Order: sequence, then structure tokens, then C-alpha cells
Amino acid sequence: MRATVMYGPGDVRIENVPDARLIEPTDALVTVGRACICGSDLWPYKLMKPGEPPRRMGHEAIGVVEAVGSGVLTLKVGDVVVMPFAYSDGTCAFCHEGLHTSCVHGGFFGTVELPGAQAEAVRIPLADGTLFVLSVGEDDALMASLLTLSDVMGTGHHAARTAKVGRGKTVAVVGDGAVGLCGVIAARRLGGERIIFLGRHPDRIALAKAFGATDVVSERGEAAVARVRELTGGFGVHSVLECVGTDQAMLTAIGIARPGGAVGSVGVPHYETIPASQPAFYNNLTISGGPAPVRAYIAELLPDVLDGRIEPGRVLDRVITLDQVPEGYRAMNEREAIKVMVKP
Amino acid sequence: MRATVMYGPGDVRIENVPDARLIEPTDALVTVGRACICGSDLWPYKLMKPGEPPRRMGHEAIGVVEAVGSGVLTLKVGDVVVMPFAYSDGTCAFCHEGLHTSCVHGGFFGTVELPGAQAEAVRIPLADGTLFVLSVGEDDALMASLLTLSDVMGTGHHAARTAKVGRGKTVAVVGDGAVGLCGVIAARRLGGERIIFLGRHPDRIALAKAFGATDVVSERGEAAVARVRELTGGFGVHSVLECVGTDQAMLTAIGIARPGGAVGSVGVPHYETIPASQPAFYNNLTISGGPAPVRAYIAELLPDVLDGRIEPGRVLDRVITLDQVPEGYRAMNEREAIKVMVKP
Repeated sequence: MRATVMYGPGDVRIENVPDARLIEPTDALVTVGRACICGSDLWPYKLMKPGEPPRRMGHEAIGVVEAVGSGVLTLKVGDVVVMPFAYSDGTCAFCHEGLHTSCVHGGFFGTVELPGAQAEAVRIPLADGTLFVLSVGEDDALMASLLTLSDVMGTGHHAARTAKVGRGKTVAVVGDGAVGLCGVIAARRLGGERIIFLGRHPDRIALAKAFGATDVVSERGEAAVARVRELTGGFGVHSVLECVGTDQAMLTAIGIARPGGAVGSVGVPHYETIPASQPAFYNNLTISGGPAPVRAYIAELLPDVLDGRIEPGRVLDRVITLDQVPEGYRAMNEREAIKVMVKP
Repeated sequence: MRATVMYGPGDVRIENVPDARLIEPTDALVTVGRACICGSDLWPYKLMKPGEPPRRMGHEAIGVVEAVGSGVLTLKVGDVVVMPFAYSDGTCAFCHEGLHTSCVHGGFFGTVELPGAQAEAVRIPLADGTLFVLSVGEDDALMASLLTLSDVMGTGHHAARTAKVGRGKTVAVVGDGAVGLCGVIAARRLGGERIIFLGRHPDRIALAKAFGATDVVSERGEAAVARVRELTGGFGVHSVLECVGTDQAMLTAIGIARPGGAVGSVGVPHYETIPASQPAFYNNLTISGGPAPVRAYIAELLPDVLDGRIEPGRVLDRVITLDQVPEGYRAMNEREAIKVMVKP
């Protein structure tokens, strides 16, 4: 079958690889109907080091169950399923607490250990716990929005939840990528009253406004901090969604949070220490977040997607075939596309 | 009057200074009945830099109102009052939210700006908002425990609250000072089931056990992390109270927190960045805490002190006069005393 392999910075290829197949009795085999390129895929695309083993990319997909192992109890061939970016057993203490990304038997797709979903098919470990069965056809018009339940919409929701967004709260979203845009949807959905979007690209700003952003701040760094404070009576916002993962973004997030406020961070941190420990302390900020347990959030978000109350699929502004994946990485890396959907 | 003045590392003196007096109409003048030396007073005692202006020390006290300004509405001469370590107006948005340490008109005692309470008397700004009137006599047997409501007991409670201690949770307390010990009381009071105290001094361990600690870990650094994990099925604890304020303590705290757990930090951070951002992120930890809004907590904690259900005054294991304050600093700095009470 054909699949996406990352070899080094800027070097991502479509190759013929051995067909995905069942290995463990708890596996399912899924034919990929739609996959995505993720902002986090751009980190190895930019920074992969010489000597790192090649990686079979992709951790977001919707597809159809093609085969199941003898130990799979709840899935059947033909089911249309969402594949969360992490696999999980659904039964351990952490899964029971809704923190599937810390599952004691879990792990992540698109890693050196487990081939990813930018491919014709993908092997799903612990399939009963991992996959979420949808009651829609494979060509449902809502497919793009359903696909975001694999990662970005759940991740934006996690940012909003960990930033303690609630009714009447003021919110800021740092990061104008697909996750930040989904963060705007989530903040609105959870009752955020004023939602300040930090961004400068006109098309992304337009989408953020369509999703519920009430204000836009296009400054950066200290100027952005000053502008957000100006918009909020000098104090900053209750909730900051940090959707980038750089120390500069975290510094901005801490700078614009109101005393007693919360920063929900979902950008994979490409820094060793969290900056500004003293302002964070003196302002009694809460810093939280991490890999989103999207598996736990699908049931909550799905009705809003099915009813059209939220349309996170609008962040997928380009659709490509598997052969065009290298071009998709280039377009996302150069910020020509917000997020790319792959139809193998 | 006599008061405590810090000049430099190891150089703290009792001096004659101008009498404390009313300045603003909203001031009260309080005769200090009891004050304390705080662990945070040891930071300038150790690290004060040449050229820093002298500081009139002390931010914890119980005393009697001696005079009130014309704008003071709720206090009268003769009231026995607790002085929280921060003053606050009690009316701003942050005070209404219970975050008095971020009061827009507030500030801190024992700073260059405002003389402290290791003195015969102290001027209290915004007295109506700041002081809490007690319905006890000045020589009540509970005075030591009531005095801890100025700071350490409220601070230990803040650590436990921000670490999300609750019924059935596993808890670890990093820091065997007075705040850590009060953190044990707070963790027990909030329903913590297993409370692991990190300490090595036999007298402090004994007190921690009396306060409700169920386990003691005397290792340090990585060995402490390994031991706490061993005690908790390999996962770590739900709630960590970080009561030190060094990056090493924070590193330990992050290392012993369970995925999805919380670190409540109340040690004034003597570091610029929070360590271990990546483990904190991948484990979806919540890092919170800051200067405790003890003014907000007095009403909650007071009934338990008055009924003797909690005895935080036991951390005050030495009582001295004002003239003995320099010796009190030495004893606390050399860890001969847990916490020193001053009777001027």
C-alpha cells in the first residue's frame, strides 16, 4: 500500500510499504477514508535530526473497519469510525477518568513505534477502546467536521476546558492555526463572552470571526500583551488558550492572563522550561493542558457537529490526494493552507 | 517604638524607630500582641543584595486596634484582630472573587513600602478590608493557632486548594517548614486519604504525623521521586503541595504528580522558569498557586481553630521577645526552630 514517510527536514515522501495488517487479537484494520496533516507534523518536517529513524506520519483519520482481530468485541467490519490521535484501552484508571492520552497501555499514531494514517490503511491497536463508531455514511457531508474530532476540535476543546472557559468569561486564543481556530469554536461553545483572537492572516481572522471571535489582536510579543490588557480594562483575560507550543507563545499567554486566570496549553512544548514563573506565581495563574484526551470528548462534541451547531471542518481549507501529501506539507509549512485534508 | 530592620544577609536588628501612626483616613493602628518570623523572611536574610534599602520586617500578627482613621467604618478601638500578610480594600473585583492578594489597591506588609509587624505597633492601610476581627480575648489559649491565620495556615490551605485536594485523593507535601506542615493539616481537612510528607527532621516528621501525614519520604531529588512513585503504584499522587519555592522542589513536585494531577505552589519562586515543561505537559498536569489570599480563608478556617479540630499553632515551637528577634532569625535559618512567635 502507499503511505507517507518522513525522512528529514522537508523530506516527506509517498512510498510503497507492506500492507497494514492485524497483528494483535485486539487490533482492527481501518481503510483510511480521510486523513489530515497536523500542525504538529510540521515539527519533524522542520526540525527532524539526522540519524532519527524514518516515521510513518499521520494521526488523524476517519475510515471504515476492514477487519478485526479475534479479541475485538464491539466493532464490526464496515463500521465508519473516528480514529483519535492516541490509542487507548478504554479500561484503565486514566481512561476511566477521561484522560485517555495517559492510558497505561496506550500510545500514539504516526510515531516510530506505530505507523500513521496518512496512508491507504492503518492498524489500530486496542481497537475497542480506541475507535469511536459513527452512525453516518462514508460520504456524509459532515465528514470534514467529523474528521476534526480525531484531533484539532478535541484539542481546541481541551485548551478551552483547561483554561477554564465558562459563561461570561473573557478569553484569548494564542495561535491562529487550525487548533487555535477550533479553540475559538470551543470557547464560544462553553460560554465565553468576549473572545480575543491573536492573529494577522486575513483569511484566518475571517474564519475566527465566523467561529465567534469578538476581537482581533494582530500585534505580537509585548505589543500584543499591551493591546489585550487595553481591551480588558488593564487586567487581562480569565482564560488563555495557548495553541502554539513555543516559549514565546507561553510568555504571551502568561502576560495576558488576568490575576487568578488560567492558561490551557495544547501546543506541544518545544521548550524545556515554562517562562515567567514569577508573574505566573504572583498572579495566581493556573497553567494546565497537555495532549488532549480527544477520545473522551467525541461523545460531547459529536451532537453539535451532527446538528451543524459547530463547523470545525471549515479549518480544512485544502483537499489533496495521497500523492500530493508532500505538497500539502509544503503548503501548511508556508501557511498557504490552514489545514490539509488527505483523501487517499 | 522598637521594630525589626533588615539591613543585609544575616544583619537584622531591633531599633528605635518613629512610632507607627495613622496616615490615611482608612488606616488603623494596631498594637502587636503576637507576630512571627516567616520562612519567606529568610530569603532576604540569606540573599539581600548590597544597596537594597533596609526593610522593616514582619507580615504576620494578631493585635489590638489602638486607633482608627476617620474613614474606618467597621473597626473600633479595642478590637482583637488578625492581620493578613497582604492588605486589601475588600471591595475590588479581585477581593470579591476571593483573590485579595491581587487587590487593585492592595500591597504587602514588611516591604520597603510598608513597615512590618515585627514591632511594637503597625499601621494597617485599608483597615476595614484588611483586618479580621476575632471574638476572643487577647490572651486566649488558642492565640498561636489564630496567629497562623495571618499567613502559614492560610498558605498551606491555598497549596491544598490549588493542588485540588479532595476526598479520597493521594497527596504529597514537598517542604517540611511551617507552611508544609500546615499543608498537611489542610490536606487532611479537605479529605486527602493518603498524605505523603517529604521530610527528614524527626521533630518535623512527628508533627506531620500528628497533623495527619500517613507516609514519610526522607529521600531527596530523584530518589524521592522514585520512592513516592513506589508508594503509589508507580503513578504518583493526585495532588502535590509545593511549599518551598526552589526549582528543585518544583522539579520534584512535577516528578511525583500523577498524570492529570495538580501541583499547588506557595513557595515564593526563587527561579525564573518552571522546570520540566515537557513532563508537565505530557502528563496533563495543572500547575497553580501563588500568594495565598489568606483574608478570604479566615472565615472558613476559623471555626476549626476555635473548636480545636485543627491546631496549626503547634508549628510555632519557639516564643521570643522583640529583643530576641535576631536570634529568632538565626534559629529559623539554621532550622533549630520550625517557626518563631514574637511577643513584643
